[in-house]
Amino acid sequence: MLDTEADFQFDKLHEECGVFALYGHPEAANLVYLGLYALQHRGQESAGIASSDGRKIHSVRKMGHVAEIFTPDALNQLPGDLAIGHTRYSTAGETALLNAQPLSVDCAKGQIAIAHNGNLTNAIELRRALEEDGSIFQSTSDTEVILHLVARSRERTIPAALREALLQIEGAFSLVMLAKNRVIVARDPHGFRPLAMGRLEMADGGSAVVFASETCAFDLIGATYTGDVEPGEMVIAGPEGLTRERYTPPEQPAHCSFEHVYFSRPDSVVFGRAVAPSRDLMGRLLAREHAIDADIVVPVPDSGVAAAIGYAAESGIPYQQALIRNHYVGRTFIEPSQAIRDFGVKLKLNPIRHMLEGMRVILVDDSIVRGTTSRKIVRMVRNAGAKEVHVRISCPPTVSPCYYGVDTPSLRELIAANSTVEQIREFIEADSLAYLSLESLRESLEDSDRRFCYACYTGKYPTLVQIEEIVTAKTGCC
Amino acid sequence: MLDTEADFQFDKLHEECGVFALYGHPEAANLVYLGLYALQHRGQESAGIASSDGRKIHSVRKMGHVAEIFTPDALNQLPGDLAIGHTRYSTAGETALLNAQPLSVDCAKGQIAIAHNGNLTNAIELRRALEEDGSIFQSTSDTEVILHLVARSRERTIPAALREALLQIEGAFSLVMLAKNRVIVARDPHGFRPLAMGRLEMADGGSAVVFASETCAFDLIGATYTGDVEPGEMVIAGPEGLTRERYTPPEQPAHCSFEHVYFSRPDSVVFGRAVAPSRDLMGRLLAREHAIDADIVVPVPDSGVAAAIGYAAESGIPYQQALIRNHYVGRTFIEPSQAIRDFGVKLKLNPIRHMLEGMRVILVDDSIVRGTTSRKIVRMVRNAGAKEVHVRISCPPTVSPCYYGVDTPSLRELIAANSTVEQIREFIEADSLAYLSLESLRESLEDSDRRFCYACYTGKYPTLVQIEEIVTAKTGCC
Amino acid sequence: MLDTEADFQFDKLHEECGVFALYGHPEAANLVYLGLYALQHRGQESAGIASSDGRKIHSVRKMGHVAEIFTPDALNQLPGDLAIGHTRYSTAGETALLNAQPLSVDCAKGQIAIAHNGNLTNAIELRRALEEDGSIFQSTSDTEVILHLVARSRERTIPAALREALLQIEGAFSLVMLAKNRVIVARDPHGFRPLAMGRLEMADGGSAVVFASETCAFDLIGATYTGDVEPGEMVIAGPEGLTRERYTPPEQPAHCSFEHVYFSRPDSVVFGRAVAPSRDLMGRLLAREHAIDADIVVPVPDSGVAAAIGYAAESGIPYQQALIRNHYVGRTFIEPSQAIRDFGVKLKLNPIRHMLEGMRVILVDDSIVRGTTSRKIVRMVRNAGAKEVHVRISCPPTVSPCYYGVDTPSLRELIAANSTVEQIREFIEADSLAYLSLESLRESLEDSDRRFCYACYTGKYPTLVQIEEIVTAKTGCC
Amino acid sequence: MLDTEADFQFDKLHEECGVFALYGHPEAANLVYLGLYALQHRGQESAGIASSDGRKIHSVRKMGHVAEIFTPDALNQLPGDLAIGHTRYSTAGETALLNAQPLSVDCAKGQIAIAHNGNLTNAIELRRALEEDGSIFQSTSDTEVILHLVARSRERTIPAALREALLQIEGAFSLVMLAKNRVIVARDPHGFRPLAMGRLEMADGGSAVVFASETCAFDLIGATYTGDVEPGEMVIAGPEGLTRERYTPPEQPAHCSFEHVYFSRPDSVVFGRAVAPSRDLMGRLLAREHAIDADIVVPVPDSGVAAAIGYAAESGIPYQQALIRNHYVGRTFIEPSQAIRDFGVKLKLNPIRHMLEGMRVILVDDSIVRGTTSRKIVRMVRNAGAKEVHVRISCPPTVSPCYYGVDTPSLRELIAANSTVEQIREFIEADSLAYLSLESLRESLEDSDRRFCYACYTGKYPTLVQIEEIVTAKTGCC
Repeated sequence: MLDTEADFQFDKLHEECGVFALYGHPEAANLVYLGLYALQHRGQESAGIASSDGRKIHSVRKMGHVAEIFTPDALNQLPGDLAIGHTRYSTAGETALLNAQPLSVDCAKGQIAIAHNGNLTNAIELRRALEEDGSIFQSTSDTEVILHLVARSRERTIPAALREALLQIEGAFSLVMLAKNRVIVARDPHGFRPLAMGRLEMADGGSAVVFASETCAFDLIGATYTGDVEPGEMVIAGPEGLTRERYTPPEQPAHCSFEHVYFSRPDSVVFGRAVAPSRDLMGRLLAREHAIDADIVVPVPDSGVAAAIGYAAESGIPYQQALIRNHYVGRTFIEPSQAIRDFGVKLKLNPIRHMLEGMRVILVDDSIVRGTTSRKIVRMVRNAGAKEVHVRISCPPTVSPCYYGVDTPSLRELIAANSTVEQIREFIEADSLAYLSLESLRESLEDSDRRFCYACYTGKYPTLVQIEEIVTAKTGCC
Repeated sequence: MLDTEADFQFDKLHEECGVFALYGHPEAANLVYLGLYALQHRGQESAGIASSDGRKIHSVRKMGHVAEIFTPDALNQLPGDLAIGHTRYSTAGETALLNAQPLSVDCAKGQIAIAHNGNLTNAIELRRALEEDGSIFQSTSDTEVILHLVARSRERTIPAALREALLQIEGAFSLVMLAKNRVIVARDPHGFRPLAMGRLEMADGGSAVVFASETCAFDLIGATYTGDVEPGEMVIAGPEGLTRERYTPPEQPAHCSFEHVYFSRPDSVVFGRAVAPSRDLMGRLLAREHAIDADIVVPVPDSGVAAAIGYAAESGIPYQQALIRNHYVGRTFIEPSQAIRDFGVKLKLNPIRHMLEGMRVILVDDSIVRGTTSRKIVRMVRNAGAKEVHVRISCPPTVSPCYYGVDTPSLRELIAANSTVEQIREFIEADSLAYLSLESLRESLEDSDRRFCYACYTGKYPTLVQIEEIVTAKTGCC
Repeated sequence: MLDTEADFQFDKLHEECGVFALYGHPEAANLVYLGLYALQHRGQESAGIASSDGRKIHSVRKMGHVAEIFTPDALNQLPGDLAIGHTRYSTAGETALLNAQPLSVDCAKGQIAIAHNGNLTNAIELRRALEEDGSIFQSTSDTEVILHLVARSRERTIPAALREALLQIEGAFSLVMLAKNRVIVARDPHGFRPLAMGRLEMADGGSAVVFASETCAFDLIGATYTGDVEPGEMVIAGPEGLTRERYTPPEQPAHCSFEHVYFSRPDSVVFGRAVAPSRDLMGRLLAREHAIDADIVVPVPDSGVAAAIGYAAESGIPYQQALIRNHYVGRTFIEPSQAIRDFGVKLKLNPIRHMLEGMRVILVDDSIVRGTTSRKIVRMVRNAGAKEVHVRISCPPTVSPCYYGVDTPSLRELIAANSTVEQIREFIEADSLAYLSLESLRESLEDSDRRFCYACYTGKYPTLVQIEEIVTAKTGCC
Repeated sequence: MLDTEADFQFDKLHEECGVFALYGHPEAANLVYLGLYALQHRGQESAGIASSDGRKIHSVRKMGHVAEIFTPDALNQLPGDLAIGHTRYSTAGETALLNAQPLSVDCAKGQIAIAHNGNLTNAIELRRALEEDGSIFQSTSDTEVILHLVARSRERTIPAALREALLQIEGAFSLVMLAKNRVIVARDPHGFRPLAMGRLEMADGGSAVVFASETCAFDLIGATYTGDVEPGEMVIAGPEGLTRERYTPPEQPAHCSFEHVYFSRPDSVVFGRAVAPSRDLMGRLLAREHAIDADIVVPVPDSGVAAAIGYAAESGIPYQQALIRNHYVGRTFIEPSQAIRDFGVKLKLNPIRHMLEGMRVILVDDSIVRGTTSRKIVRMVRNAGAKEVHVRISCPPTVSPCYYGVDTPSLRELIAANSTVEQIREFIEADSLAYLSLESLRESLEDSDRRFCYACYTGKYPTLVQIEEIVTAKTGCC
């Protein structure tokens, strides 16, 4: 049997979560559910919602896609005017359900639920200290560490306890928290991961406050984007209204550039900037930097589409969608014992021979991680008759793992960490290969004032990252 | 609750089936399953496979998608070297499972299983006569009519009995049949629906014969397209080898033009012609016929993509994917009681405001059926800031129902059957609206010798269609 | 893996269906469902209900238990004032769902649905003739044969067509049929299988007519038993009221004696006689015929309980429930690879050592079919400390297969067909073994006028049974 | 809709868990699963198993019955030679899955998993103190309290930490715990709940150690009962062999008498005494204490069977199973809107009119809790024709709630806490009603030395029970 989802996505970097929160609407859980639906691309393993009816926190968490989990029955179990939700990226392991979020607990502060997107770089250290002090852990997620810190705080109020906890954790986090009658959200001082804020006008003239990883979630429910939760900021929505406070001075901003390269939906505004023009510019600058004489520009769907359109527009070479993606994908497939060459990729992609035959093809994608899938696609295009296959990548080579909430393979597996561009070209069997330069990526993001993080391209991390965390980066994430 | 799949697809015409058949491979059922997987777009309600191990016919039919139905356990129940499969379009009704195909029965000729794509125009008449003669019907599908005719034939062999049956049925059919040790396929004398033939080389030097509605199914399993089953032809694959015979003289060809406009996958070869260049030409000719000054060309995904690229290339107006499609769609959604404007369409599409704001937009789609979804999309684009919205359709207005295997609404519901183009424009709230002319459609198909059917655009049916069949067209289809 | 249900029931004879029908109640399907629930012991593989709302017949058939199949959603699909239902015994085979009943079809007579309990002894002959005449069969059940006969009848009305069909079929049948606005039931001229009639008073003063295999189904819905459908009788409930007619002269009655020995629930009245006193008398007469000095009388639960109580009462030996039955049984079990002696039986039964230790035990059961399970139980009782184990069976040895609707193993497998009582005793490792005599069984049933069938004990069949039917008896049953 | 399980069991007291543990067998999880299967009657809501392969603890917990949860796939996820399991009684609430056991955590002592049967009387107090000290709680079960105490212990070894925890908790507990390479079990100093120990001989001459709530679990897997874990004892099975130690001096024994009256299976040995003779004696002494002239003795199945047999034997009045229990029960039922009198009870029980008509009936049951179900049964028997209905209960009136692991209703709902026997008789509409005296109950248990707890009959609790715990007794249990 072949796990096709895994096989195909093996060669991609993965976002590790989407969050959504809402305060002040009688259909809180329904709207959070729609918000999560729009954030489904940020994590497909499990999803959860916790809501409060003012007396008690209710919670539903399950493995699966948002639209499967939140049946009418499930939503009926989530009454109340305030709610938070989470969608989680697929990882392996028996304890998957235990790691599903929001995590909801009782403690001396009352009932609280938390979900977050990101990765704490000092989670292991904190966890060890907490265990030494008698804490028990039921999951492997960082979220549980935050809950323990809140619970152990000597502060009397939940916001104060959360503030104390936030000052102890390091790394990347965009966090949503639900108490009996408050929604509290916070973002790390570097602002690694996005967290947008918005307003949903109601029929009666009132309005609800909403928070989401990406603004596409606001579009679906008809809410308006009003700005970002700032790095180092905590926002409290409660009966007293909206309170914004800096719980710590902001540090040098370090917004994840890969959100614009690949993770975020092209219809979102992320870190205050629309994603679509970033991708268009990446394609255009890639065309300027790495022009080549060819007949057609073809995207690897769906991740390469926006940059390929930009590349084609800039170069004047015709754009063609010559690789067709099959969206009806099941979880597992019986692979016929008769070997079918590059079977896993074929289940997802099929080339249009008519368009490719005899052509010099520029193939545009957003990244190469291990190189194995890229090689299969190059072969597929060549087998469909392409005379030449030139691969263009809309960001620089990925040379370093991310410790800020992106699931990257180990250094050993990252092809660009171990090979020259020429070696990669040879491995993927392309006629030429070129990456967007770091300068052009920054230009694409209009990042003249260095607000973005490029650590995965440079190895220069904005925070101190310890060896041990590097080794175990994959276990502690959101 | 909102059935989103239904809501969104409400305004589309629908193909009513895909078929696949294979003779002579030890993994027959596995390969048929992969073939059906590639044909999933032709029908998502139910799917089935029947295989023969030479002694007995085995069968699995279920509601749902191919990848969900054919688990390892299900495939283990399908031994043998020959098999046929079917994927069926979603229609309503409690008897849905009974209508799933292949239909497998015992009769005086032994065990046989049949599946087909198409619609018999004399099914009701035949059914009535059979019932008068004592036949019982367990489903509402035409397939059962064919089975009765085969069973009642006085001919002694299955091919002869099938030949006799084929001579009695009228209309559109591409049919695959399984007997204990033969696969027999046939196509109506007009060749309304596609049926491609291919060859799968095996490791041991032998080869298997394969048949499919579209060649994309061959690509996935590594088979080679060798040509079409001809109109009026019956092909028998058995221990004696491959036998091709004309069971009736071919009539004037009448290949469904809408296969090239919308139904078939762009990576398929259908009726001997690649689909991709047809769509590209439709877009280009549309641009020539109905040019307009605008800023961007935007497809309605995914159906309008190929024509939009052609339109953009021809017109020189930049191509932009400014509508994002959400592919993680569930079957039903709780609609929040707070009205969300155009909720159903929003679940599937989201506009990229940044690309649309202030723009004069040419929106390209393949068809307008009822007009309701088109209106929602036009509004959505306008609400996202477009200054003008010009709709371009890559085929002529659909003015007549199809009786040859396409699920069309009644005349009363077909907007183009009851309105002028100007009235439709007004209804969908576009600034301008234009359709590809019939001549240009023919040019796109390179149909100088009239091999295609355009009845849905002209009302001129290639066969005699009776009033009664017109009334009940939707009940009797494949 | 071990199919425990199968393993444990392997050594039992099985009823092959229960039927229920109702005419004239606004909650027809709900009540039929409750009736089937009470008849669940007559068949646990699949169940179905067909209802009519006067215009159309609706139908739900599924694999599984009644209480799992008929969810609120399923029952909502079954509107109307008249309905029939069926519960079917578990047999193997891929076509199980196709054999589920009621079978519902369209024919020249309109829509009809049929379900029956019994077995046609000329089904194969009829099926062959029908196939020769061009009929197709989708299932292997006799019911489909009856439907074909009804459909092919030249009679104009459904009752007349059914009458014609009934005159052609031979064997055992208690049949319920649903037309658009009539319920028709019929029973074979020997009256092999039960079919009770009753009346359900309604709040508004009206009443509905009900039919069921056993009266326990009437008790649950509060209906009153009014008598049996007579052998050779057809009863029509329709807008014109209740019509009873003899469609054929009754033959010598041949009620299945095993219904009273084992099949029917002890709270039912079957063939006009309460089951409980029959079983009590079997136990008492067994005690008189085969007395033995012992310490306790122990039933094999649940089938041996009633006779054991009678045996104990008659003999004065104390009754003890020393074998405990586990009712929480799953479908399959992983058997530990470490051999657990008599594992399959142990999952269902556990002995109470305290009651058995040092005791001379009389073990009472209703029958021995293959002998394998009996041997396991005797060993279990002995291992729990019993000094002696004397087995007493509440009917004569089963020496011949049944062709009238009971699933019996082949002659080769029936231990009593091939062994003397002494040989059986030796095989099951009992200290003594005795069966109730035929005379005493007749006395238990108060059958002075020979109304019952004892063919399985005598090999004297009340109808002509052909060799071929004997060979294939198991495929054609209800 | 009607939740029949709940409706019928509403008037019963409920056990709140069964536990099983095994050390030293290569098929540990398989055997624990079989053990839980035999303990299914102690809890049907959820079940779980945790196993250790020496390096890591694996765990599967789910809602549902044991035989449904532990599929081959589930068992494959549970490797290793040592395992513990738990089956839990059905309670309401969204957090049901979170309360499923064994609870498995990481802490400074490593990975541990715990499950228990019982109820801590100081759980709320401990929980409050732990929360004050910063602990977070994900469930409402007492088990989590124990885990926190173990985790917070300053002791270095797990046994020492558990010992420290055990000294802090009060109430009733029979506890099984799994560490990486040890199974540790313990019992409270009063020995409220049972915990048996046994030995499973292996094919290779070695043997495994097993622990279970009841010995019927040993019978199924072929293990031998070797005695009980003593009150106040902790037993450690590890690589060093079996270590038994008193972690605290035993207190006055207080074994739950209701285990013998109702909870335990009659084939078990519980608190060193076989259950079957206890129940037989209860019936016999009840006959002596409360003789009455009647025609038949009828048990309420299945709980009243054993005592009814004893009553009949002692009184010489014939025993009859005149109430038939339907075991095919679904979770919910659509109740027909036409009122069916006493519908819920009818789904489970049906009277045999033939046996009851004109009879003076002695109806034997194990208890009356609220009285509502008893009234329905009395009415049912009377409606079936009984002339007189005399109810006999095989223990004294239940006047006080249990705080030691039995789910009892509040004082307000306990009919015997608020009514005289005569008032209860009137409420349940019986002709006479009598309960076994406390003296006779003690005689039935051969409890001359006061080893049993009778608090539910006397209100005299063996431990200090605080008001608050009384109020909230139902939330904190196992």
